[in-house]
Amino acid sequence: MQCPAARSLERIGEWWSILIIRDALHGLRRFDEFQQSLGIAPNTLSRRLDALVDARTLERREYSEHPPRHEYLLTDRGRDFRPVFLALLAWGNKHFTPDGESVLIADKKTGAIVDPILVDRTSGRELSERDYGFVPGPAANERTRRRLAFAAEQPRPTTKDAGPARRRRRQRLEVRDV
Amino acid sequence: MQCPAARSLERIGEWWSILIIRDALHGLRRFDEFQQSLGIAPNTLSRRLDALVDARTLERREYSEHPPRHEYLLTDRGRDFRPVFLALLAWGNKHFTPDGESVLIADKKTGAIVDPILVDRTSGRELSERDYGFVPGPAANERTRRRLAFAAEQPRPTTKDAGPARRRRRQRLEVRDV
Repeated sequence: MQCPAARSLERIGEWWSILIIRDALHGLRRFDEFQQSLGIAPNTLSRRLDALVDARTLERREYSEHPPRHEYLLTDRGRDFRPVFLALLAWGNKHFTPDGESVLIADKKTGAIVDPILVDRTSGRELSERDYGFVPGPAANERTRRRLAFAAEQPRPTTKDAGPARRRRRQRLEVRDV
Repeated sequence: MQCPAARSLERIGEWWSILIIRDALHGLRRFDEFQQSLGIAPNTLSRRLDALVDARTLERREYSEHPPRHEYLLTDRGRDFRPVFLALLAWGNKHFTPDGESVLIADKKTGAIVDPILVDRTSGRELSERDYGFVPGPAANERTRRRLAFAAEQPRPTTKDAGPARRRRRQRLEVRDV
């Protein structure tokens, strides 16, 4: 499986993992804190925390020897998930808030509400679909290259296919890979 | 469930949905194109496409009457998922590419490889954890407010708790909500 997004999903494992990472990003650390926040059974939470530790997004640390108690801290990998979470939150705010927004992102100093956008670090330009696309990286295999070549040749999604273009679509896609 | 990220996850439903949206962002539209790309059973794919249509991230459109054939186009809501996907891809590229990167984001004109970061649209500043936090929005209920208040009071994650701070943690968290 070459797609880096698919690999990320594979490592995160399930939706609940993202909510645990969310809580960790909010500063929660202790088992009982996660449990209270998420309202799930201890054995379920335990399994999910273990999976996140295995995926090296969380690190388990003992904070009490007697009785033995652990806390869960984000690793660098877990912390780097923050932009994904913020983007997900912004998408939710835009599309799934029939009663208005309940959580917003704000400047800690000024309190100004933030509209998050994804840009190119170098140029500062927003990563619009028109201007930015996907290209094979150094480790791309033949299938990934074909899939991206197919993607690059697609007309903009609102364009209607002509007959010959439709036939070409069928011929070119021979990909069987995620 | 007030958290907008949790709501997004609820609507997306399962990991596979994200890979279908990925393929749609790459220009795939037809049932057989998705099937070839994802390598899954037709009835499974059918169910997932239906779920995405129900969630109004995809729109089903007939492109042939005889025989009846449909294609699946991203709605505005589906298209707005793109930053989430790009952030996920960047996270995967950073953390799950032992053999090097296989898919990169590039400027379509210049071919320059892009390092995507999330910034405040107005100021252009990166949404770092130090400078940006979460605040309750207009529709926040009491639980959401308490959770965010708890989050706001947490020390930076690398800081070690002193004894009294630890006790305060326990007292303050009375949240049972995602």
